[in-house]
Amino acid sequence: MSTEKLPKRSADYSAWYNELVKRADLAENSEVRGCMVIKPYGYSIWEKMQQTLDHMFKETGHTNAYFPLFVPKSFLEKEEGHAEGFAKECAVVTHYRLKTDPDRKGKLMVDKDAKLEEELIVRPTSEAIIWNTYRGWIQSYRDLPLLINQWANVVRWEMRTRLFLRTAEFLWQEGHTAHATEQEAVEETLQMLDVYTTFAETFLGIPVFKGRKPAHERFAGAVDTYCIEAMMQDGKALQAGTSHYLGQNFAKAFDVKFTNKENKLEYAYATSWGVSTRLMGALIMAHSDDEGLVLPPNLAPFQVVIVPIYKGDDRSEVVEKCKEFRKRLQAVGISVKLDDRDTHTPGFKFAEYELKGVPVRLALGGRDLKNGTVEVARRDTKTKTSISQDLLESYVKDLMEEIQKNIFQKAYDFRQANTVKVDTYEEFKEAIENKSQFVFAHWDGTTETAEKIKDETKATIRCIPMNNPQEEGKCILTGKPSKERVLFAKAY
Amino acid sequence: MSTEKLPKRSADYSAWYNELVKRADLAENSEVRGCMVIKPYGYSIWEKMQQTLDHMFKETGHTNAYFPLFVPKSFLEKEEGHAEGFAKECAVVTHYRLKTDPDRKGKLMVDKDAKLEEELIVRPTSEAIIWNTYRGWIQSYRDLPLLINQWANVVRWEMRTRLFLRTAEFLWQEGHTAHATEQEAVEETLQMLDVYTTFAETFLGIPVFKGRKPAHERFAGAVDTYCIEAMMQDGKALQAGTSHYLGQNFAKAFDVKFTNKENKLEYAYATSWGVSTRLMGALIMAHSDDEGLVLPPNLAPFQVVIVPIYKGDDRSEVVEKCKEFRKRLQAVGISVKLDDRDTHTPGFKFAEYELKGVPVRLALGGRDLKNGTVEVARRDTKTKTSISQDLLESYVKDLMEEIQKNIFQKAYDFRQANTVKVDTYEEFKEAIENKSQFVFAHWDGTTETAEKIKDETKATIRCIPMNNPQEEGKCILTGKPSKERVLFAKAY
Repeated sequence: MSTEKLPKRSADYSAWYNELVKRADLAENSEVRGCMVIKPYGYSIWEKMQQTLDHMFKETGHTNAYFPLFVPKSFLEKEEGHAEGFAKECAVVTHYRLKTDPDRKGKLMVDKDAKLEEELIVRPTSEAIIWNTYRGWIQSYRDLPLLINQWANVVRWEMRTRLFLRTAEFLWQEGHTAHATEQEAVEETLQMLDVYTTFAETFLGIPVFKGRKPAHERFAGAVDTYCIEAMMQDGKALQAGTSHYLGQNFAKAFDVKFTNKENKLEYAYATSWGVSTRLMGALIMAHSDDEGLVLPPNLAPFQVVIVPIYKGDDRSEVVEKCKEFRKRLQAVGISVKLDDRDTHTPGFKFAEYELKGVPVRLALGGRDLKNGTVEVARRDTKTKTSISQDLLESYVKDLMEEIQKNIFQKAYDFRQANTVKVDTYEEFKEAIENKSQFVFAHWDGTTETAEKIKDETKATIRCIPMNNPQEEGKCILTGKPSKERVLFAKAY
Repeated sequence: MSTEKLPKRSADYSAWYNELVKRADLAENSEVRGCMVIKPYGYSIWEKMQQTLDHMFKETGHTNAYFPLFVPKSFLEKEEGHAEGFAKECAVVTHYRLKTDPDRKGKLMVDKDAKLEEELIVRPTSEAIIWNTYRGWIQSYRDLPLLINQWANVVRWEMRTRLFLRTAEFLWQEGHTAHATEQEAVEETLQMLDVYTTFAETFLGIPVFKGRKPAHERFAGAVDTYCIEAMMQDGKALQAGTSHYLGQNFAKAFDVKFTNKENKLEYAYATSWGVSTRLMGALIMAHSDDEGLVLPPNLAPFQVVIVPIYKGDDRSEVVEKCKEFRKRLQAVGISVKLDDRDTHTPGFKFAEYELKGVPVRLALGGRDLKNGTVEVARRDTKTKTSISQDLLESYVKDLMEEIQKNIFQKAYDFRQANTVKVDTYEEFKEAIENKSQFVFAHWDGTTETAEKIKDETKATIRCIPMNNPQEEGKCILTGKPSKERVLFAKAY
């Protein structure tokens, strides 16, 4: 671990983020353009996210399956909007063999004789390959709904990449469901948006605005795209999950028809929804501070770290007591790491776990042994207190809930303080450009206006919130009539 | 579900396997050459395998991480043996963009302007990309051992593919560890071989021979390759897992040096080990019968299925009792599916769950309600019995263990009955070609002899067993002296 301090958020938010991701052992850039290596500590947080989401998906009736990594080019072409949306960022497999280069000893070259008849695209998303498969699975309304999720890697060739936030390859889950009616599919779309909202707020500890995307921000091939939008500490928005109602677009493109209850052939209705390793970026940017990561207990790889403090003689006694603590805490379902390494000082360990965001640190020394006490330090508030060892389980258990709640509340208060309503374009620019806030403002509903505002201020419409209050107003740019405010922000 | 019978194993083993995989909803071929779709029921068995193995890896000190899907061609070239071994089956990414085809409306074409400077290989395995990363992670002996596993998809372009057994894309885990000493790395290699052995025998219910591969069958880049070999019902061998001691080959190729305790620079020692979705093929082929799949309780997505049998009037009463059963069984940790669909007859359901290999089926009808009984049917022995409802939990719990044990024993007895020692080439050919057996025979230790035997009989040396008894003998082909018998078989 480097002992150098992190850059400060206030000085260079972007450098702070990049350094934090690397120093806290979350991820690093690989030598493969745009692809990251997710390091063990970072991956263990992602595993927690996966387990939690997977459980929520199964509770709502979904099962997992696995579809091919490659999408034939002709499949991608079938849904026009979809093809246009993804064509420009596709990794294309053209050959299936290398051979020894006759001119350069020990080197390999592409074998021109092993050219594919049809190019294969490394999946940027799996609607095409999955709906081509569903054609064989769906004949009757009795085969519906089909509620399937896939955990997978996908590739979208990005020119500017940032660890977790935007990488050429990323990990995600993609749900793909098929339904007999439009109503059921729309309900599914909204149900999964709610699942994502619950996950973001209860596990990530991040409050989100949920809503519908304006037409020009829809997923390529969707009838409607819904999303959850989170505020980062620099005031920028991060789209933390999307859920799409795809109508019959993919069923038509891939000819997926079923016999309905009235014995008539009909195209199936589709949804798709996904979250990705981008959530790691959200988690980091929403809560962490200048000393390092701050993890919510619900997603921390270990919730408590125990550091024994000894001066030679009392080592074995102190470490024994720490082991007892570990056992007692594990017995009540708390995950614990005991760091009894002799090669590092307590001070070094304190800094390391602070950097890594472990929610609670216990420190136990010779005096604690005598007094029957233990020192408890919270990562989120950086406060310390000494408690009686008898209270260990109940105190730490309560603290987990308290920290989880506090982390959410802090993020919530920050967002409240940085979200405004404005009525003029002047106010709008002030809020977006100088204060980096979330802004609710009237918009005339046209793509043209949205694009113009984006060009001038970099702010985009993040969503039209669900259950949005209806009120008469005038578009901040054009002055044309509007019936509701939409959420604008600069975004990742 | 098709009501047609499966082909019989005795008539056409291969057709039986292919049909079973499809009809039991395990997997199907996709339209992408060589790539399969793993269907929900099949995937849920794979998930059970993953969870079990992942737990075993963590118990032995490993953590998960994630490395890029793509390997630059130049990385693959660095370890010569490795490059030669994989060059001929590589999917090669050459471009990163498609564009609209000006000559064909609505079609896409590769954008020639978006050619990669260096081709990227879709990983066939990750030694190269991982050891290139480890260079940055390993400086001192204090950084070792590095015990990392990855769950991932890999691609090896195969010309002849079969569901689960040999597919262009497959799912697997690959462990990649780095150590400060040769001894420690060899111990790790053997430890993971033992983990695989325990998994195969305790969870898959398949006895395995474990041993070392002869030199010509080693993994490309390995110093030593160890494996576990399982017998399928047609007498052929299936390699069910491999563990490689890689020596310093990859450390040298990627310049991964560390300062050892004596303060000298040294190359790190490596291992890698993996199992894949091939295990699904092993599981299916080892236990299943002409009626369908036979699943060991330890890996069955649901261990018990409950089928209510009613004649109109008593439906609600019967279903209520079934729900009570489900609850009682779940309370003792048994996974249960209750199939109370009105749209299918009990007979149809019986056939479906037989095909899908559910270990235990409970059937409850009006008479059972009156008598306080329930019918219990075992999938493995196809026996039925009626028990008192009071005994439900204890009886079914015991039955799970009994079935798991019986499935293993059956496979073990079959293997015993079909494994022979031979001393002449005539006997060898008789055993291999006519009886399709596992054969222990003397071999002179040369690749040439092994190749000749393979050409003439299709049998390969599966392994040189661990703790192999040493005995003087003569090579069955050349008559040259030999000190131990090795295991020959035809293989998948």
